[in-house]
Amino acid sequence: MREAIGIVGGMGPAAGLDLFDKIVKATDARSDQEHLPVIMVSHPGDIPDRTEYLLDGVGSNPADAIYDILRLLEQAGATVAGIPCNTAHAPRILDDVLKRLDDEGASIRLINMINKTIQHLRGQAGEPARIGVLSTRAVRTLRIYADALEAAGFDVVQANDEVQDKLVSPVIFSREYGLKAFAPASEQARANVLEAVEHLADGGATAVILGCTELPLAVPESNHHGVWLVDPTQVLARSLIEETYPHKLAAPTS
Amino acid sequence: MREAIGIVGGMGPAAGLDLFDKIVKATDARSDQEHLPVIMVSHPGDIPDRTEYLLDGVGSNPADAIYDILRLLEQAGATVAGIPCNTAHAPRILDDVLKRLDDEGASIRLINMINKTIQHLRGQAGEPARIGVLSTRAVRTLRIYADALEAAGFDVVQANDEVQDKLVSPVIFSREYGLKAFAPASEQARANVLEAVEHLADGGATAVILGCTELPLAVPESNHHGVWLVDPTQVLARSLIEETYPHKLAAPTS
Repeated sequence: MREAIGIVGGMGPAAGLDLFDKIVKATDARSDQEHLPVIMVSHPGDIPDRTEYLLDGVGSNPADAIYDILRLLEQAGATVAGIPCNTAHAPRILDDVLKRLDDEGASIRLINMINKTIQHLRGQAGEPARIGVLSTRAVRTLRIYADALEAAGFDVVQANDEVQDKLVSPVIFSREYGLKAFAPASEQARANVLEAVEHLADGGATAVILGCTELPLAVPESNHHGVWLVDPTQVLARSLIEETYPHKLAAPTS
Repeated sequence: MREAIGIVGGMGPAAGLDLFDKIVKATDARSDQEHLPVIMVSHPGDIPDRTEYLLDGVGSNPADAIYDILRLLEQAGATVAGIPCNTAHAPRILDDVLKRLDDEGASIRLINMINKTIQHLRGQAGEPARIGVLSTRAVRTLRIYADALEAAGFDVVQANDEVQDKLVSPVIFSREYGLKAFAPASEQARANVLEAVEHLADGGATAVILGCTELPLAVPESNHHGVWLVDPTQVLARSLIEETYPHKLAAPTS
């Protein structure tokens, strides 16, 4: 069989599916046979919550399960892989995964969603100077996007405590209306994300990274009242195709 | 890792994703960790078109690639699997897959989408006496659903030649507007399916099986002008959960 694109799914399951769907839609194909080989392993029950591990010391390092899944993907024929979870890109998780892959002589190549998203921003004509970031508490507190953006020459505005705790964290995790609990996204989830985007726009952001893979499930559009909404899952989907079958990459739709 | 549900994807890629999505939505879960392990291997380029093989003798038996994918799924930890392609359930394909699994001592169990769909119809209160079937040319000509439905005591109405050739086959395969070429489904695709449903209703059908996994992508609703629309992908999703983690099966929504 041909070399496949691998997806480390389950963080959450809907985000994994969203990446897979975006790969299919970004492929230049008009029949089944023209589509690309993709393998997704979704083991949500084996991967501890990333935010709780990073900030609250709850559970073991999710790197263990992520590493195991990457090896399964490699055995099944994947040569590159993506992890559709921004929080899992925190160095305390990702560096551990990369070190184990290296120590064990794994051949699968991991595409870094956060680096690719920042490259994408830099590559855009008329690039925005001040970038907003919406994310889990962990990505905000550890400044996973913020530090990388500043290193790339951007100004950054993150959610303040109130926006994070009242709008963004619940939209991801709430068991009453959050995106990890309900699909399709609830009205409340969508309203929270848009209100949070407006807060960052008030802080001067002309683009906002929807930096948790659940967020674009509620707000799929690429623009809100003139603010550019950047979807890292979409960037990762296109990057995975570029790394494997670049001639199959469809023209961007937005 | 826990025992996983396997999906033989790629027939087409969107239908595989649809099954995965329906498994996630039919799972009683409010956090990532409460979701079920699922693995999908999508190798669309390796699986010849099922209808062309069965009716036109074009290409090799898709059973070869389906068997290989099932073994990959088994190696990656799947104990049961589904094939979200009705046409692949034709005996000339499926029996060959099952024989090879048996000959090679495979342990993965395949759940038959067609049998489960007919069981589902029989299990419904007020079950409809006359069932319509929309499908690929192959499923119609080989009477894959029709014979099984009649054996189960139902009357059957299939598409006539004109409905098949002008509405149903193009809605699946057309490179201008078909479901294998365009996602989300085009307006034309949706209009074709609904018109075909109305033809079968005129023929006395009170329920219509959307017997190609592409069709529910265009018409996700379960009722059209009083005709019950039966989605085999949805039935397969629930069956796969029942066979592995029955306590995690959410209450039906329709």
